[in-house]
Amino acid sequence: MVIVMKHNATKQEIDEVVAEIHALGFKDHLSSGEERTIIGVIGDERPIDPEHFEILDGVERVVRILHPFKLASRDFHPEDSVIKINGISVGGNQVIVMAGPCSVESREQLMETAAAVKEAGATVLRGGAFKPRTSPYAFQGLGLKGLELLREAHDTYRMPIVTEVMASQDVSLVAQYADILQVGARNMQNFSLLHALGETQKPVLLKRGLMSTVEELLMAAEYILSHGNQRVMLCERGIRTFETATRNTFDINAIPLLKQLTHLPVIADPSHGTGKWELVTPVARAAIAAGADGIIVEVHCNPAHALSDGAQSLKPAKFAELVNDIRRIAQAVGRMV
Amino acid sequence: MVIVMKHNATKQEIDEVVAEIHALGFKDHLSSGEERTIIGVIGDERPIDPEHFEILDGVERVVRILHPFKLASRDFHPEDSVIKINGISVGGNQVIVMAGPCSVESREQLMETAAAVKEAGATVLRGGAFKPRTSPYAFQGLGLKGLELLREAHDTYRMPIVTEVMASQDVSLVAQYADILQVGARNMQNFSLLHALGETQKPVLLKRGLMSTVEELLMAAEYILSHGNQRVMLCERGIRTFETATRNTFDINAIPLLKQLTHLPVIADPSHGTGKWELVTPVARAAIAAGADGIIVEVHCNPAHALSDGAQSLKPAKFAELVNDIRRIAQAVGRMV
Amino acid sequence: MVIVMKHNATKQEIDEVVAEIHALGFKDHLSSGEERTIIGVIGDERPIDPEHFEILDGVERVVRILHPFKLASRDFHPEDSVIKINGISVGGNQVIVMAGPCSVESREQLMETAAAVKEAGATVLRGGAFKPRTSPYAFQGLGLKGLELLREAHDTYRMPIVTEVMASQDVSLVAQYADILQVGARNMQNFSLLHALGETQKPVLLKRGLMSTVEELLMAAEYILSHGNQRVMLCERGIRTFETATRNTFDINAIPLLKQLTHLPVIADPSHGTGKWELVTPVARAAIAAGADGIIVEVHCNPAHALSDGAQSLKPAKFAELVNDIRRIAQAVGRMV
Amino acid sequence: MVIVMKHNATKQEIDEVVAEIHALGFKDHLSSGEERTIIGVIGDERPIDPEHFEILDGVERVVRILHPFKLASRDFHPEDSVIKINGISVGGNQVIVMAGPCSVESREQLMETAAAVKEAGATVLRGGAFKPRTSPYAFQGLGLKGLELLREAHDTYRMPIVTEVMASQDVSLVAQYADILQVGARNMQNFSLLHALGETQKPVLLKRGLMSTVEELLMAAEYILSHGNQRVMLCERGIRTFETATRNTFDINAIPLLKQLTHLPVIADPSHGTGKWELVTPVARAAIAAGADGIIVEVHCNPAHALSDGAQSLKPAKFAELVNDIRRIAQAVGRMV
Repeated sequence: MVIVMKHNATKQEIDEVVAEIHALGFKDHLSSGEERTIIGVIGDERPIDPEHFEILDGVERVVRILHPFKLASRDFHPEDSVIKINGISVGGNQVIVMAGPCSVESREQLMETAAAVKEAGATVLRGGAFKPRTSPYAFQGLGLKGLELLREAHDTYRMPIVTEVMASQDVSLVAQYADILQVGARNMQNFSLLHALGETQKPVLLKRGLMSTVEELLMAAEYILSHGNQRVMLCERGIRTFETATRNTFDINAIPLLKQLTHLPVIADPSHGTGKWELVTPVARAAIAAGADGIIVEVHCNPAHALSDGAQSLKPAKFAELVNDIRRIAQAVGRMV
Repeated sequence: MVIVMKHNATKQEIDEVVAEIHALGFKDHLSSGEERTIIGVIGDERPIDPEHFEILDGVERVVRILHPFKLASRDFHPEDSVIKINGISVGGNQVIVMAGPCSVESREQLMETAAAVKEAGATVLRGGAFKPRTSPYAFQGLGLKGLELLREAHDTYRMPIVTEVMASQDVSLVAQYADILQVGARNMQNFSLLHALGETQKPVLLKRGLMSTVEELLMAAEYILSHGNQRVMLCERGIRTFETATRNTFDINAIPLLKQLTHLPVIADPSHGTGKWELVTPVARAAIAAGADGIIVEVHCNPAHALSDGAQSLKPAKFAELVNDIRRIAQAVGRMV
Repeated sequence: MVIVMKHNATKQEIDEVVAEIHALGFKDHLSSGEERTIIGVIGDERPIDPEHFEILDGVERVVRILHPFKLASRDFHPEDSVIKINGISVGGNQVIVMAGPCSVESREQLMETAAAVKEAGATVLRGGAFKPRTSPYAFQGLGLKGLELLREAHDTYRMPIVTEVMASQDVSLVAQYADILQVGARNMQNFSLLHALGETQKPVLLKRGLMSTVEELLMAAEYILSHGNQRVMLCERGIRTFETATRNTFDINAIPLLKQLTHLPVIADPSHGTGKWELVTPVARAAIAAGADGIIVEVHCNPAHALSDGAQSLKPAKFAELVNDIRRIAQAVGRMV
Repeated sequence: MVIVMKHNATKQEIDEVVAEIHALGFKDHLSSGEERTIIGVIGDERPIDPEHFEILDGVERVVRILHPFKLASRDFHPEDSVIKINGISVGGNQVIVMAGPCSVESREQLMETAAAVKEAGATVLRGGAFKPRTSPYAFQGLGLKGLELLREAHDTYRMPIVTEVMASQDVSLVAQYADILQVGARNMQNFSLLHALGETQKPVLLKRGLMSTVEELLMAAEYILSHGNQRVMLCERGIRTFETATRNTFDINAIPLLKQLTHLPVIADPSHGTGKWELVTPVARAAIAAGADGIIVEVHCNPAHALSDGAQSLKPAKFAELVNDIRRIAQAVGRMV
């Protein structure tokens, strides 16, 4: 941590900052420039809030030096984490394809879609039972019934299931039915949920909040890791920007950046990342070309009658083309689907 | 809802859209322009997702006509809602001042701050017992102990208490100690929490998410209102933008815009809205000048030793100046503190 | 400037960074922490680009310590700059009101509006002759004819004129007719224009770019100041954010922040800052409450027939109410209109 | 254009809107819903500003139906535009690689880099002679001398030259030396520059503003096209968002979206799009995978001593790897480098 003093900071103000540094058990390192004095804080700064110093008289601002995450960092875990889930490995050489409907709507809809995505090459089945919806008047998901249908699809098609859990009190229930617990974008900083997930041993697919920085995503992962669960996958799903022509802006930079900063696997969600089915396949190709370890895609046999997210769902035939495209891109970057 | 067809949409595609409109129980209204056909959907569009039509062949885009919220709207409730809390009225002529520490840290800290803010003119005491923190390594609040201290401060200083509740399972506990239940910005779309709050009769202070639109804020209020609780206050607390010189960008436009769109009271939080104590007072003045019904401010007797949010906390003397400033501004706009 | 080395930076990499620091004529200041080495660069860092060091092997990132602006900074010019224009002082105790139509459309329109805003209390007349328009098919302004009409209005109503100049080659022409040269938001980083304005002695009203930081605004001012023109006024006119309910988001925080960082006067533009006439007056009040030195407002006698910006223009009667409101707020903060 | 009337709009207000529609030479199409009346405006709405109606009494908002661009639109020009430049075709099956230094710094630097990028497979040489710089204290480019060196490099290495032109009065000068005229991001809405470029016949590389929507980019292209120059290439170079871990956020969605909306070629700039050399190659791969017609990349033989943009410049060996990567991705999507 580096503390930048104001232009006109007095010697007494500087001394008080140094005293505070010592009081917290750190060493100081003073550097007097022509226009400013800056003071280094030597030690593991992670537990201290920069505001602790910002409020002191004479301080202009405080700059963190270390990333605030540790367990998620490549500095402390240089090799890639490979997460094994029912015989599938995420984060290794294979590119993983997760697909299925946004919401589980009925047995028929789920089974038909599961059969189609399996046939096209998907290895994990997605589907929502508990749905976060912006409007209280919209379809909220089938709940427990949806979980039971997902388990049935798992048994029939032998695909691991990924589904969202929305509240800490539901973690143990959802964990009975799902193979991967998904944290939705709006819950990325639901800290009681993250805490509860840290205490299971189920793999977690942690979606980036639509308003969250890469650093905040890694801090959310740190919550889960620090409570004991090491099986965390990150998911880039688009961020909110000023551009309104697409539902979100898929942050392609985040893929290679995350691979540099962390050892955790990175999955791309081009369905939410674009919000328009016509853009899903090119952005899926881009994500794999940029180094993503897999994709998660919404597929619906009859999107016009989907109860949610129809506009970004692919029909099975389009999805099969997407998988073929991805396969060629994966080869071009030395991987395989 | 207006459906805009593609340039080259066929008659059959148009017919299928119209058929779908009828199937949903709506009437259509077709308008053929030179370059595009557009189709109006006549009826209460709120329960339908625009995506339902976006996915149909030949459709370019779908435009909502009605605001998706109803109970929160001034259209359906033209006069201001005035919320009574222990003898205080929020949303009427009086400008409300809520103040206190970010976190409850100890009895001494809380009582000292409560005495100071009461003396300066605050009418509601704020303080956090459950704290959402970005880092798992940071202070997470005193929990139940904090609630007990808040109640003690209530009894001593006769001020209603506002404090955050972070999860649906904590609502009934927090409601035993607090007079106003606060929803934090990161939880604005925690739908299970909103649902639970809708089933209490406690007043709710709903903070705008840091990357939520005004419409999404009103939809979050709609969740609470539609589940039966009409005592909702909205809070503008700054949004996330590209500007990094301040912690957030206080959206001053949102104050008069909300007063126009909704009957619910609007509170301003200049502490989070700026993140810098030197900017809190001018932005508080601005919020009242723009028509806010009150402010919520972080005050700490020793901000340098605050366990959270020190940089944006005012010392009691500065807070007393703020209240004086606000009083003059309130008079200038025909109100009173 | 502080250079943060990577976790695993070698001694040789550190030595090369230090050698580069010396080669540029600076002194180094090395600090070895537990996890990172950081190296301070001692001297006036303004002329060096941080990228100069970021590219060196072993460097993780580079943090600026000094603000990159100097002439615009309060550190070097602590007292407020007060700019005199034809007997009016901007930046002193008086709050300045600039008003007029978005575009000059005709003699009748301009004279009628000038009379009305003068009557209501405005002291400077605004009006666009050269108009930047997003669409090549929209009205582009009257050009020279517009300038002549503005001069005529000046002579008739004895109000200084502010009007936009869009290109460096037009500066001398516009300067013959106008008293204040306005730089539009889209030209804030048109460096050849800024350079040319630095070589005149006419006052400049520099609008913040719609996606420019406060620091970039001050750097744009620095361009003008460093080429010799000290008469620069800054203008906050709203920034682009994710919120679409208003045309822009007026950054109220920027007002007190600018007053803290710079000695230059700060004007608020609530017309562009909101884009909706119904929000202009409350946001104008807010800006003055926050410490702005003046406002610039679009007024049109017949906004429905304005050739540009009708939706954010006030009719004269509404503008007169605005001036009354502003007068009361100015008094409440110890100033006058 | 669709005009949405307020909830409580009167018959007279509706009649006045209709009268105004007729006065402008359009037909109306009225639709009375349960809660709102909406009025369609039939005709080519492009020349009218929505604000023209927004300001009328009783109007809630106005929704555009048609895209405001026409010449740039695929609706009016369905097949891809292929732009021929000295024997190279941009927008056809071949993926174009433009590369070179950010700034021309010296003959030696330019010739060395030109030789290296040619050897690695680049077909167009980039280099800045006039440089837009945020700071007045930074290197501003060699100007005319830089143009002469670029021409010399052209003659020696037989590569077309792309370089930035910053002001309308420089267009004819730069056109004497360059084969492609680049409009920088900060000048995307410098309308006098766009106008001047529309009157040349030189190919233009139009960079998206860092704060501009895809629609605004297409409107900027429309300026050039509508003034007579049809040889426009668009360039996605990253937008400004809340994320600060990268210099910009490369908007990968914009690539397939632009290919859908327009017939003009689309080039990707992963150097500015990321701002970090370590991310340039993966994002270049992604852009080609998403359908870009080419890339433009900054290459420097000694980035640590670059006078600008060092941090995002690739050394020649890394650039050669990038070209190899791109070649494989191009094949995977059925194209070639």
